[in-house]
Amino acid sequence: MKKFSPILQDLIDAFKQLPGIGIKSAQRIVFYLLKNNDDKSQFIANTLTASLESIKECSKCRMYTDAEVCEICLDEKRNNKVLCIIESPADLLAIENTQQFNGKYFVLMGQLSPIDGIGPDELKINKLTELIINNSIEEVILASSPTVEGEATANYIASIAENNNIKASRIAYGVPVGGELEYVDSNTLIQAINNRNIID
Amino acid sequence: MKKFSPILQDLIDAFKQLPGIGIKSAQRIVFYLLKNNDDKSQFIANTLTASLESIKECSKCRMYTDAEVCEICLDEKRNNKVLCIIESPADLLAIENTQQFNGKYFVLMGQLSPIDGIGPDELKINKLTELIINNSIEEVILASSPTVEGEATANYIASIAENNNIKASRIAYGVPVGGELEYVDSNTLIQAINNRNIID
Repeated sequence: MKKFSPILQDLIDAFKQLPGIGIKSAQRIVFYLLKNNDDKSQFIANTLTASLESIKECSKCRMYTDAEVCEICLDEKRNNKVLCIIESPADLLAIENTQQFNGKYFVLMGQLSPIDGIGPDELKINKLTELIINNSIEEVILASSPTVEGEATANYIASIAENNNIKASRIAYGVPVGGELEYVDSNTLIQAINNRNIID
Repeated sequence: MKKFSPILQDLIDAFKQLPGIGIKSAQRIVFYLLKNNDDKSQFIANTLTASLESIKECSKCRMYTDAEVCEICLDEKRNNKVLCIIESPADLLAIENTQQFNGKYFVLMGQLSPIDGIGPDELKINKLTELIINNSIEEVILASSPTVEGEATANYIASIAENNNIKASRIAYGVPVGGELEYVDSNTLIQAINNRNIID
């Protein structure tokens, strides 16, 4: 690849570093951008530059926003007493897309993982504790990932909630809706059987 | 999604328009960029802006370059008499990666497709004809895609070559190396049998 325009190579290499993008996808995207140089690509370039300058974490919930406090934290129609705790901004979008949750959020921006040097300080658990106490939260819903680290993170925050006499709940484990039972892994199946619900 | 920072939505929507990127990938990429805002993302933003400004088509072969004439066209060690004709810059990278072809290229930036309004003028076939005659090319290798449109494009250029008494060749059809015969489609198999080579 050393024979090509250095800036073109830089651009392909830069895109290659993005998650889920390999060398072929990076090339395809770069050539698409250069082909549509007039409006679409300029729009992406300008939006990207502007976003990187203006988007910061919300000072309350840590979601990305271009304001000091994000739209969800400011929304007075939402239930201020229920706090859903998630690992990433993408999780927030996923839950919002269900249009079923009307409480507020706190984004940890990661999960407890001592091996990677991520402890309570990196996740700003102090800020979360403060939020729980100051806003007299009644319930924290722990929606961290169903992984070992996600579980540890949920347990850690649950113990903080308990110390402050606040109800903590964990999202349910079970079989995914619409999935076929024979393809569900054993651990999930065990959870689904253990957490079975009585049919009235 | 209407509850989020408009610039964040714009950025996700912009990435969603890129080839091969769906809504989930776009979100993942955008959140990755915001998380690595300090160096990586700034580098992408700056490189993209600079590329869109400086990268143009090479005045000889139409490959993307930031110079007037690209590195390959300027390279005097390459065979000036063999011209490989391809549809896209990505095809050029694919052939260069083989490190086996030492001639020059001409990038059509598309394929003949009357239904989409793409005729010889859009592919700048005049420029190609000029190049073939002025550079006293001895052979054109037609490496357009093995599709109906690619075939039509190859035939059209082959007839121009013929009119100018220049040899035209078409890349070979056959079974892909390393593939399993049972998964090869019938048309390819027919071509592979018809184009069989005698073993000496």
